[in-house]
Amino acid sequence: MRYNKIPDEAVRRLPTYLRGLLSLSEQERKKISSQRLADFLGVNHWQIRKDLSYFGGFGTPGIGYDIEKLIRQIRKILKLNMVRKAALVGVGNLGSAVLRYPGFRIYGFEIAAAFDNNPKKIGRKIGHITVAKLQTLQKRKIDLGIITVPCEAAQETFNKLITAGIKGVLSFSPCYKTGRKKIKVITIDIAMDLSRLSYYIPPSQFVAGQALS
Amino acid sequence: MRYNKIPDEAVRRLPTYLRGLLSLSEQERKKISSQRLADFLGVNHWQIRKDLSYFGGFGTPGIGYDIEKLIRQIRKILKLNMVRKAALVGVGNLGSAVLRYPGFRIYGFEIAAAFDNNPKKIGRKIGHITVAKLQTLQKRKIDLGIITVPCEAAQETFNKLITAGIKGVLSFSPCYKTGRKKIKVITIDIAMDLSRLSYYIPPSQFVAGQALS
Repeated sequence: MRYNKIPDEAVRRLPTYLRGLLSLSEQERKKISSQRLADFLGVNHWQIRKDLSYFGGFGTPGIGYDIEKLIRQIRKILKLNMVRKAALVGVGNLGSAVLRYPGFRIYGFEIAAAFDNNPKKIGRKIGHITVAKLQTLQKRKIDLGIITVPCEAAQETFNKLITAGIKGVLSFSPCYKTGRKKIKVITIDIAMDLSRLSYYIPPSQFVAGQALS
Repeated sequence: MRYNKIPDEAVRRLPTYLRGLLSLSEQERKKISSQRLADFLGVNHWQIRKDLSYFGGFGTPGIGYDIEKLIRQIRKILKLNMVRKAALVGVGNLGSAVLRYPGFRIYGFEIAAAFDNNPKKIGRKIGHITVAKLQTLQKRKIDLGIITVPCEAAQETFNKLITAGIKGVLSFSPCYKTGRKKIKVITIDIAMDLSRLSYYIPPSQFVAGQALS
């Protein structure tokens, strides 16, 4: 398959489709038309068809999609048809929240290790994970990393993850350069998502004390 | 301007451009070509030109972009040329991390209020915000909401935000239905972002104990 030519935007939407399909599967639905799937997900039906067409189609004209089959296919495309292990670095408020987040399992993820450089946190248990020293990461044979350290520690953490053999990073900190290293980084910048939200919302009626009621 | 016809994907990229431009501005750069801006941001230069063209262009052929001017223009498009206030609901680990997040200010956001339904948390101070009861939100005249409550509390929280006059929601919980209400919701689902990362990373060498070293 021509994985290299798939637009990032299509890849971005696949997990949304997967989440919706898993939810439909829980409702014991078997088949669904692309129009109904689109309505359920709140997207355009041509978008779903186009996105899936990059990977070879999967629907049957006039019938639609077999839900279980499409789940398996999307899992395979996203390489989620196996358990994928991730290591988290930075066990502050954010890191603790991510460690306790219940939503990873349905996608096949396991946060298998957590690290912090604060000696007081080493050995502490959060959920079923015991916080360890980052130096022990290399032995753990994990290839996905999650960075939840403060800004000033982000560059050093990133560099250490690469050295330890991490191949992909999900980062909550936009505060570092990845350089020319061949590593995929996805950054979650909460302020940027809030900026995007702002676009869709009319300027506040509530500016500088001049509330219109 | 034809704001309604702009693809969501272009809007999604504008905050990234803004972040890069703010960083260039800190370095006291004045002008930049679209090619250099693209290199700096790690995107295609035709993408930037196309995205900006939806809003009327802004570059000068052969010279490129005036950095300060483009910052002002993107801020205006995203309606960030004013202080925008947000209210956060759910002061657990995640909510506390978001309240302490230093990155909002450069985009013009102020988290102006925080709410929790746990009586023990009411009155507690996090950063410069005092946690209050959600019932007091309506009086605060705020129109953006951030939901950081656990899954099982998400639907009720969402409904209450709508009732209190919130116009847009940034949610860390995918666990509710927005219904047909005219409200923009942006969901940050950490597991979905991790799924997207998985696509780009070859299957682990480290599967089920069969480590290849």
